Amino acid sequence: MNDLDIYHLDDSTMCFAINPYKVCIRLRVRKNLNINDIYVHYGPKYKFKTFKKVRMELFCQTESSAYYQAILNLDDRRLSYYFVFTVDNVKYFYTEDGFSSKFDETMWQYSLFQLAYINDSDIHKEVSWAKDAIFYQIFVDRFHQGDKTKDTSYINMKQFDRPDRMSFYGGDLQGIIDKIPYLKNLGVNAIYLTPIFDSNSNHKYNIADYKKIDWMFGDNEKLHMLVEQLHKNNIKIVLDAVFNHCAYNNPIFEDVKKYSSKSKYFDWFIIHGKEIDFSDDHFNYDGFGTWKYMPKFNTSNKNVEKYLLDIATYYIKEFDIDGWRLDVGDEVSHEFWRSFRKACKQCKDDFIILGEVWPDAHSYLLGDQFDAVMNYPFRKAVINYLLNHFNSEILSDDLNKCLISNTSIVNNMMYNLLDSHDSPRFVYELKGDLNRYKQALSLMFTFVGMPALFYGDETHLSGGHDPDCRLPMVFEGEHFDYEFFNFVKNFINIRKTNKALKQGNIRIFSKNNLFYLERYDENNRFTLILNNTKNPVKLQKIGNVVISNLYDDKNVLNDSGFVLFKN
Amino acid sequence: MNDLDIYHLDDSTMCFAINPYKVCIRLRVRKNLNINDIYVHYGPKYKFKTFKKVRMELFCQTESSAYYQAILNLDDRRLSYYFVFTVDNVKYFYTEDGFSSKFDETMWQYSLFQLAYINDSDIHKEVSWAKDAIFYQIFVDRFHQGDKTKDTSYINMKQFDRPDRMSFYGGDLQGIIDKIPYLKNLGVNAIYLTPIFDSNSNHKYNIADYKKIDWMFGDNEKLHMLVEQLHKNNIKIVLDAVFNHCAYNNPIFEDVKKYSSKSKYFDWFIIHGKEIDFSDDHFNYDGFGTWKYMPKFNTSNKNVEKYLLDIATYYIKEFDIDGWRLDVGDEVSHEFWRSFRKACKQCKDDFIILGEVWPDAHSYLLGDQFDAVMNYPFRKAVINYLLNHFNSEILSDDLNKCLISNTSIVNNMMYNLLDSHDSPRFVYELKGDLNRYKQALSLMFTFVGMPALFYGDETHLSGGHDPDCRLPMVFEGEHFDYEFFNFVKNFINIRKTNKALKQGNIRIFSKNNLFYLERYDENNRFTLILNNTKNPVKLQKIGNVVISNLYDDKNVLNDSGFVLFKN
Repeated sequence: MNDLDIYHLDDSTMCFAINPYKVCIRLRVRKNLNINDIYVHYGPKYKFKTFKKVRMELFCQTESSAYYQAILNLDDRRLSYYFVFTVDNVKYFYTEDGFSSKFDETMWQYSLFQLAYINDSDIHKEVSWAKDAIFYQIFVDRFHQGDKTKDTSYINMKQFDRPDRMSFYGGDLQGIIDKIPYLKNLGVNAIYLTPIFDSNSNHKYNIADYKKIDWMFGDNEKLHMLVEQLHKNNIKIVLDAVFNHCAYNNPIFEDVKKYSSKSKYFDWFIIHGKEIDFSDDHFNYDGFGTWKYMPKFNTSNKNVEKYLLDIATYYIKEFDIDGWRLDVGDEVSHEFWRSFRKACKQCKDDFIILGEVWPDAHSYLLGDQFDAVMNYPFRKAVINYLLNHFNSEILSDDLNKCLISNTSIVNNMMYNLLDSHDSPRFVYELKGDLNRYKQALSLMFTFVGMPALFYGDETHLSGGHDPDCRLPMVFEGEHFDYEFFNFVKNFINIRKTNKALKQGNIRIFSKNNLFYLERYDENNRFTLILNNTKNPVKLQKIGNVVISNLYDDKNVLNDSGFVLFKN
Repeated sequence: MNDLDIYHLDDSTMCFAINPYKVCIRLRVRKNLNINDIYVHYGPKYKFKTFKKVRMELFCQTESSAYYQAILNLDDRRLSYYFVFTVDNVKYFYTEDGFSSKFDETMWQYSLFQLAYINDSDIHKEVSWAKDAIFYQIFVDRFHQGDKTKDTSYINMKQFDRPDRMSFYGGDLQGIIDKIPYLKNLGVNAIYLTPIFDSNSNHKYNIADYKKIDWMFGDNEKLHMLVEQLHKNNIKIVLDAVFNHCAYNNPIFEDVKKYSSKSKYFDWFIIHGKEIDFSDDHFNYDGFGTWKYMPKFNTSNKNVEKYLLDIATYYIKEFDIDGWRLDVGDEVSHEFWRSFRKACKQCKDDFIILGEVWPDAHSYLLGDQFDAVMNYPFRKAVINYLLNHFNSEILSDDLNKCLISNTSIVNNMMYNLLDSHDSPRFVYELKGDLNRYKQALSLMFTFVGMPALFYGDETHLSGGHDPDCRLPMVFEGEHFDYEFFNFVKNFINIRKTNKALKQGNIRIFSKNNLFYLERYDENNRFTLILNNTKNPVKLQKIGNVVISNLYDDKNVLNDSGFVLFKN
């Protein structure tokens, strides 16, 4: 037996504190290993006589491995532990030193796994409202124009036009205020807005003045009103922090262009040379992507850190926002995000920090930086299933991999999306197949974490790669699919009113090439089943049908359909 | 093929920046998998056409796995990469999405491994003098009494007495100053002192006043003199930071005992209840170990952090010390150590931070907290080999596990010890077997990291569990083994004067049950061979013999012997 057969690592996603006296322990076991009776024996480091034991339960399975999990309830913040199990009916002890068939008393002090002391400041505290959150992302220019008195000469597109990179539709903060009844009716209780600060683009990811609300969108007063109205309606608001780079015309960068090395902001950017070169063909500084028009901040510079943290905290203190979404989160320094987290959480304890990181984000999710990320791996798993392989075992493996990659604390705060302003619309990827799109939504609304709609997802607004995915919103009329809206609204309501669906344990697996997702607590068990076998499948009823599509009263689930049972 | 067969994780010990344009990549491969021609293809995220490739070389093997490694030289700080190799002559591409036999162009954007941007502040910078360091730990009370004028009434033991918990021998800072010529002669160039601050014990791990040098040891002026004299002789000095807990009679804790919840220091400790109870049988606060006499600080409290960081920086700014060793490092909060690192490194860039963590320390060694730790896993591996199993393959696996558990940056700064004030002396564990002890020393002096002697190791001063391992030092006379001293001195000199031994690559393996450790650079290759087969073994000479024991001129290496070749 070796560490590929069975593996554990302390102080990691395999061992983390939920509170000072509750620790989650996971164990990875090679699939099909004949392991049984897995126990964690645990107790305070210096009091071996008081050790307790708890049985580990199967948590999830991936292609290669089974993961077992147990919750330890501690009397003392100093945790030592080891594992006991049988493999092929032989008893093993597993400590940091490896596997042994006998337990040697001398192991106590020097060989046990440890979480040496659980300090309060190291515990990743779950944002209290995350488990109840249903998010709704708004690309502000394309949502709704509420302010009819503003200078509208910049507006150059109408509803049903396809947007290009230079399109302006006229959406603004007043437009969001006006549509709060719509959001309430849909049932979402948290919104995330793409940037709203001074910028000459429609997306506003190139910011010229971080302390100024863009005039096309409103002003300070309008933001105050928006937050106030949202909070009155129990809706949280998350803004977009674009701290990786600024606009080409940001006065700070203008100063560098003008004075080069003599500018006091010269080392606020990452310039390769003694002077700046901003010619088109060989500009010599790092930017976002390959573009010279979004110069990257040097967040390793303490003055830059101070400047950006002042902005981050200003909007919390002055406007009472509830979270930041971090644009290009993984190109900004870890060190900066650590300071950022401290500064934000100090202003508002129940503040959420959501990073934009597309690949594996484990190094941002240790509890010292982000609360969670936009869950693109979830999106990727669902797309691959519904577009490419239709193999429920692969989907099960992929989603379980999402669950096991991070702590349960992070999982509970994940921003689970099907699409965003940066991706083709999910329904577009599915070439308009609304049945499969409903399957995707059923996954999002039952998965662990925060379901997150992109405006218009609720009426299958379509669109390809950006800017095509950023069409003007439709709120009513012949292009508004009321039936589909009601389907989404209904699912949101089901999620919100059932504790087990929001907070319950999760179990994901595949059986007869049907996909199963269970959420359960001590009172209820929900079972979601998806069929992509190309054939109708006769099911056994597991409780009452809560919501379904392509499921008939003879208990037949048709291809591309889903059903959610409650038991 | 699955993630147990082949595995990589970005932004981890498998992918880390050495500088902004140099990244080390590692790949884990199941042992005996028929893998060949492993390449990393890499380049800037947005410029796929410019990708380069580099072949991965075998770095080390453990019981279960082979680890391959490559150094990437970048032109751009934004790194994307993927692996290409053959398994059983079938070509595979390995991305974050897994294994594929064909490379799909759409993978570029969404599937590659990434180190999204290498920010300066996230790079773990190696302390410049670490690779040259030979450490020497001094338990101050037991080293040498230099001040003959002080009140000596507290001294209650003489040389060759066995110490008990209450023994005082009289060693002090002047004693260390007096013995600098001895240290110079031995060849060490860095010392680490157990605590020197105001405390009523001989070990002084219970500190009453952190800003006061203990009167038994000296005063501020004496510490100034010591540092000055050491630096004049190119010897670095590391002090012991006991920030987990303080003394029972520390005025801060006295205040809490006196005023309980009315003390402004009440929440500086971790007290279970509304008032403190410090009765012997049911005291209600956390301490070091199970003892009420060393109350644990609540480092999650920002005032405690401020108090301790002030102490940490005071000794750097006022006395110019070169490092802190962190007592009970793993019971103090990660968050505190992050602030601690920033504060110390800001005072002195080339400052070293060495934690005391006995079990796996990965969560402290991400670059944001410690530089390295006291390498007890190294000690454990060597003890197990020379005392229990004598199996060179297990030793090879264990030491390779040490190497693969952390980045090469951390490995280069590891404090590699055979014993300390907290462990039985190594020679004691070996029941005085000086040949095997020399083998252990040969491992320490050739391994990657900083060799670290505990005072007296150089003359095989013996002793069991503390306090027995804390005997008075012997500097000369009939109890001083000059031959052994010269062996150690010689080995130190060999290490210091050969670049490949200090900075070279390392390769560890077992062959015919002999243990091999190679260190090599572009100019030289050193090969250390250990024999614990119970039989003499005829070797092939690999270059000149630099140092050896139980190795004869017929190239026979006897049992318990070692030989170091230079080629």
